[in-house]
Order: sequence, then structure tokens, then C-alpha cells
Amino acid sequence: MTDYRRLRVALLGAGAVGSQVASLLLRHGDELADRAGARLELVGIAVRDVDAPRDVELPRELYTTDAETLITGADIVIELMGGIEPARSHILLGLGSGADVVTANKALLATHGPEIYEAADRVGASVYYEAAAAGAIPIIRPLRDSLAGDRVVRIMGIVNGTTNYILDRMDTEGADFADVLADAQRLGYAEADPTADVEGYDAAQKAAILASLAFHTTVPLESVHCEGITTITASMIEEARDAGFVIKLLAVCERLDGDGTESISVRVYPALVPRSHPLAAVHGANNAVFVEAEAAGSLMFYGAGAGGVQTASAVLGDVVSAARRHIAGGTGVGESTRANLPIVSIGHVMTRYQITLEVPDEPGVLATIAGLLSDGHVSVATLVQTMVLAEDGSEGTSARLIIGTHRATDSALRDAVERLADSDVVERVVSVLRVEGE
Amino acid sequence: MTDYRRLRVALLGAGAVGSQVASLLLRHGDELADRAGARLELVGIAVRDVDAPRDVELPRELYTTDAETLITGADIVIELMGGIEPARSHILLGLGSGADVVTANKALLATHGPEIYEAADRVGASVYYEAAAAGAIPIIRPLRDSLAGDRVVRIMGIVNGTTNYILDRMDTEGADFADVLADAQRLGYAEADPTADVEGYDAAQKAAILASLAFHTTVPLESVHCEGITTITASMIEEARDAGFVIKLLAVCERLDGDGTESISVRVYPALVPRSHPLAAVHGANNAVFVEAEAAGSLMFYGAGAGGVQTASAVLGDVVSAARRHIAGGTGVGESTRANLPIVSIGHVMTRYQITLEVPDEPGVLATIAGLLSDGHVSVATLVQTMVLAEDGSEGTSARLIIGTHRATDSALRDAVERLADSDVVERVVSVLRVEGE
Repeated sequence: MTDYRRLRVALLGAGAVGSQVASLLLRHGDELADRAGARLELVGIAVRDVDAPRDVELPRELYTTDAETLITGADIVIELMGGIEPARSHILLGLGSGADVVTANKALLATHGPEIYEAADRVGASVYYEAAAAGAIPIIRPLRDSLAGDRVVRIMGIVNGTTNYILDRMDTEGADFADVLADAQRLGYAEADPTADVEGYDAAQKAAILASLAFHTTVPLESVHCEGITTITASMIEEARDAGFVIKLLAVCERLDGDGTESISVRVYPALVPRSHPLAAVHGANNAVFVEAEAAGSLMFYGAGAGGVQTASAVLGDVVSAARRHIAGGTGVGESTRANLPIVSIGHVMTRYQITLEVPDEPGVLATIAGLLSDGHVSVATLVQTMVLAEDGSEGTSARLIIGTHRATDSALRDAVERLADSDVVERVVSVLRVEGE
Repeated sequence: MTDYRRLRVALLGAGAVGSQVASLLLRHGDELADRAGARLELVGIAVRDVDAPRDVELPRELYTTDAETLITGADIVIELMGGIEPARSHILLGLGSGADVVTANKALLATHGPEIYEAADRVGASVYYEAAAAGAIPIIRPLRDSLAGDRVVRIMGIVNGTTNYILDRMDTEGADFADVLADAQRLGYAEADPTADVEGYDAAQKAAILASLAFHTTVPLESVHCEGITTITASMIEEARDAGFVIKLLAVCERLDGDGTESISVRVYPALVPRSHPLAAVHGANNAVFVEAEAAGSLMFYGAGAGGVQTASAVLGDVVSAARRHIAGGTGVGESTRANLPIVSIGHVMTRYQITLEVPDEPGVLATIAGLLSDGHVSVATLVQTMVLAEDGSEGTSARLIIGTHRATDSALRDAVERLADSDVVERVVSVLRVEGE
């Protein structure tokens, strides 16, 4: 066996991902040493409670509650505690002591990324976070390095497995949101408190990270427009299917070119995606990131979005990269944010929409609605009218209108929808959904 | 504008990719400088004939026929000439003068990779080749870095756009190989001499590169088993469709685990892929690489496989990486080949097969054939018998047998097929195809 230099690896957190990382580090030590060019010695695992029960059996002497001592003695710190504090302080302590940091903490990077990257730059260390954006799918290096010579135009990502699982089951089974959510919780696909997933917060954090990399711009989490999937109903999904679409929770990062001044938009919302689009074929809890770049064209990255062992794969890849950098010498490369493009608010974003209305089945209604829309600078591209049956199955007095619009700004659309809702000729605004991926 | 350090970039070759690289370097200079942290100064383009007509207009003074002088003065050498010599000597000269090298030359890397990587290691330089394996699809960094902590089990890649274009059109149009090839040549999807594509040589070079990275093992091109698509007929494709398959030219890189001793197999051949597999949905000249890893599970990378500007994207990403490394200092990381797994020949590879035979429509034939197969350690999993009509449309005297086998070694299968071909009860062995991706 080659006599490699030893690198001291400190692990913070022993949850689903952490315990898998520790187990793989111990099990595949020789193999990893050959690849990294250094022996990765797991010197300790910082936890809150040494005696807590854990899924994966690891040598008891590795556990410690003294994270600080562990961190300051390490060459590489793996942070897998999640949350903002003490993760942030621990990472800053590690960087301050000259360690490279590997983290999967999207919440922290999306809110305190710049502080952490600057701390790394000051000492010439590196921060690796392949596991923070799309689980095991390698998307950070492709964006950061492979596409560094290209210009990314748009990213559309399914980056939250829980919501894709729910929407996919609603689509295949015609089931309602609440029922599928309850079942997903029972099966472990959704957490007891599903807020972060179903409200889109998790996807928004990932969108901020992806957009920062793609557009070389610091993207604060507050600038990411975010809508969840709690308002999506079985009938909206059915209507989408009839029109050739599937509803997906998308993280959209877009470069906008207006009058020679560039800007970007970063947003998360459920959108109508054509069934022929590759993203429509992403089923279950899988993730996929669709990237359009000026020169490279369309690329797609697909795989498992989450799961302890899958995420551990991404973390260990980062650990090997950090080790190689330690051996090679030199400083970390740092984040590229010098483009610093302005980030526009959702109101300025242009997409197509599909508006579903219930209206009285009377002459003149259509003309009034078309007039209200065009007054608001929203123009109608497609229109389907169907009859709404009364509760007893007899012919009703209402009609359902499904209006596909041409591209319009979000603010124009909102104003127009408000006018429609206030109008006498509209009984009910059933749904308003954006269309992406056409 | 930030006052960046200048890095001298030498470009070798001004073909479809080279001219796009030069054009992008000149057009996006400021943006690339911001990302690389260095100004990428294109100091010259080495060509055979300065006055040759070119598709892309570039400043005439950049062209030179004196490659050696250009190379020895460069910080980064981009080799896009193709072929073995003088590309090999030029790259070695560049590395010897301390330059980092970016290349898209799969033929060179697949045959002289080790020599080039060793030359880089000696001086602590790096060789980047994202464009050599799947065009614009970022696959090198994911394999080399993101999955460095995981164990790749299998890669199945559609890595040649020309053959995928031909097979896809044969599948959708029911057309014959020769007709589609002629049309592909007319449309520029296939070269005047299509040998390297249709015989699988191009895919074999890429397979050698992918397998080297995935298995941390030097994979000589000679060890890659290679079959092309020239024998694929319209009726084979039709039969495949009837059975729920599509025929794809696959590069398969596989880790074999036998009795505790690991080995690998690298092979290129047309195979039956289930229509439900993600690779079946790769149409036209696109490429896709499907990766199965122990921890990460199934991943897929999809995009344009070739094209001047697409490949230029991958090349420029490498140039930015090389520049960042120059600025960061330290040595190149080098290739990881310490696993050095033995490479087994095709005879030891186990897959399922689909054998199509024409046999006399007589009693006892089936029993004889099943016996011949089982004597050869090939066992039958599925069997479909259909009638072969005579030329006049009347009931013929022959039957067609489509036999799906259980997994068997390639050598056992070959022996069994030979026995079948020699046997009195087989009129004709219509086709033998391997099944992958089940």
C-alpha cells in the first residue's frame, strides 16, 4: 500500500447523510486514498449527544461534543448539521484555521454564502458544496467549471424531490394534494413539517445557489420569488393534462436581455411544462436540471435528488477534491461573482400564462374578457370554452374558459387577473398558471 | 475594468471547433477575464496554411505556421488539430515549456493518454479534455471529481452523434442503413468517409477515456471491444420495436465483481435497449451518458454531442479552469489510475442476447435448438415463433424464431450461435443482438 500523506477530516453531524459519509470514509479508505493521493483520516464526528441512537453503527470513540477542538485540528471540515447556527460559526472557524470546507447546507449558503466565500478567499481555502443544489446530481462543477466559458441563458430545475413526488402522484393517480402529502409523509418522502418543501423554500435556496454560479452574480435568497404547490388541485392537473402539459415545481434562473442591459430573474413556482419536454419525464422523487447555454445548447442533468447515501456520494466527491487541492498546493479558486448582474423582481418577468375562468354562459362575455385583458396589455393566444355542468348533471348556466396568453409581464398579468376577478362577467378565477419550457 | 494578469493562450488548429473557440475568446474577453481571474490573450493560431479559406473571420495577423514558437511562449495551449501527429509532439512541447494543455483530441488521448498525463505530472501542469468524451456534455468533471468518492458500477453512453442520428432515423422512418447514411452525408451529419463513426471507432476512443476516469485505470484502446452499426438492417430495427426495444450504439463500461476479484469491461456495440429506458429517448444527433454508481444511484447527462460551437463551449470551460489554476498556483492534480483493474476481454462479458433464426417449420426443431443452446451453457428465457411467408405471400415452409436468452458469456453465446449456424435445423441466423439497460 502506498504511504500517503494523512489529511485529518472532521465531520460535523451524524444524521442521514453524515452517518453514510462516515461509513463510506471508513469502508473505502484505501480506495479513496488512491484517488485523492492522501489518506483521509476521519478524526472525529461532532454531535450534540454522543449516546443518541443512530442508524449506522460507527466506532463510538469517534463521537465528540467538542466541535471546536475537532475543527481547529482538521485539514478538511465536512459540515452536515444543517441550519444556520452553529453551522455558520463552525465553518468560519474551520476556514479560519486553514481547513477546506465541504458542506451540503443549502440554507446556509443561500443566506450567508458571500460571508463564507470571503472567509475562504482570505486564507486561500476552498468551499465545496456539490451536495447543496441537487443531491447526488453533479451540477455544481458543470456550472462552475465546464460552462465557465459559455453564457448560460436559462436553467429550469426540478430540484425538490418531495414536491416532484407529490405532483407526479397527483398526475398519475388523479389524487388530491392533501391525500398524497399525507401518504408521502407516511412513506418518508415528506417530513412531518413539510413547509420547506411544499412552500418552495427548499427549491428557492437551491435556485439561489444555481443562479449565483450560472450568472456569476451574488443572488440573495430574498431576491428569489417563491410560490409553493399547496394551491395545486387535482382538477388543475387534469386540465393541464388535457392541454398537453404537466405541472412541475420549477426553479427558473433566467438571463434577460433588454435594450442591451442584462439582468437576471430567479424564481420558483409550479408551472405548466409541455409533456414533450424532457423535464416532464422526471418522475417520483427524482431531480433534473435543464440548462440552456449560448454555445453548448441544451443540456440536462438527471438523477436522485436526495437520500442519505446519494447525497453522501456528492459529499465524498467534494472531500476527494479538497484533498487533491491540499496535495497540489495553491490557493482555492473562489467564487466568480464579478458579473454582478441586476436581479429583476417577478413583476418584470415575462412568461406565457394559462388562465382558467368560470363565466356566465351568455353572449358578450367573451368580448368583455378579451377587452379587459387587452386593456391590461395581455393578449390572448389560445382559447377553449367548455360547458360547466350543474350539480345534478344537467346543462348549467356557466361556461369554463381556458385562456392561453401571449408573453406578458407578471405585473401586467396580475393586474389583468385582478380586473377579471372584479368584473361582473367572471364568476370565478379558477387558476392562473405560468407556462415554461415551450 | 479590473487590471488582470495576462495569460498567453496559443490555439493549434482553426477548424470547426478552433475557429469558434478563437471567436468566443475574442468576443467575450472581458467576461471571461472576470470569470477566470486572468485576461486570456489569444496570442496566435497555428495552421498549416495561413491563406486557407475559413468559415469564421478572424484577425489575419493571428495565424502562423510556426507552431513551435507559438507553443513555447504560451501559458495555455489549446490543441484542436486532431490526429496523432503533430498534435502529440505539440502537446508534449507545451507541457515541457510549463503550459497547461486543453485538448478535444479523443484519438490522441485514447492512444497516448498515459504518455501525455505523465509529461504533465513531471512539470506539475494539467491536461483538460472535457470536449473529448461527449462534446458539450459535461461528463469529465462529474466522473473525475463529483463521483471521485463513489464507485461507478456501469456507464452506458450514446457518445456518437452520427450513428445515433442514423439509427434514430432508421427507427422512425423504417429506412435502410445505406439510404439514411447517404442522406446524413448530404446533410452534414456524417462525413464523406464515415468509417470512424459507423464502425464504432470514435465511440471506442470515448469509451476508453470514460472508463479510465470512472475506474481509475488506464484503459488502452486495444482493450475496447468494438462493433459498428453497418450490419443493422431495417428489419432488425422493426423486430426490435415489436419486442419493445430500440437499437442504440452503446459504449458500455462495466465493473465486474467475480469471486472478490474486480475487473472491468469496456465495449462498443449496437444493443437492444428497452423503450422505457432514458437512453431510448435520445433522438437525433444528441448524446447521453447514463452512469450507475453505488451510492449516487442512476445519473444521466444529456446534450448535443458534437458541433463546432457546442464543443467550443467545453473547450472554453477548460481554458477558464486552466487559467484559474495558473492564478491559484499549485500543481495539476493529475490522473487517478491507481486502481489499475484488470480489463477482461469480450468473451468473459455476460449479457442477455436476442437471437433471430429462420428454421424449417417442422416438428422437433424447437427441441433440437433448445438442446444446442443448453449444451453451450446458454439458456432460453423467452421465445417467439412466427410464420415466414413465401415470396408469393402464401404460407411458407419456414418459421422465424426470436430467442431471448438468459445472461451468458459472450464466448458461450458465440459458440452456441456457431453450432446453430452449422446445424441442419437452422436455415439462417438472421441476427444476434445484445440486450443492455434492463
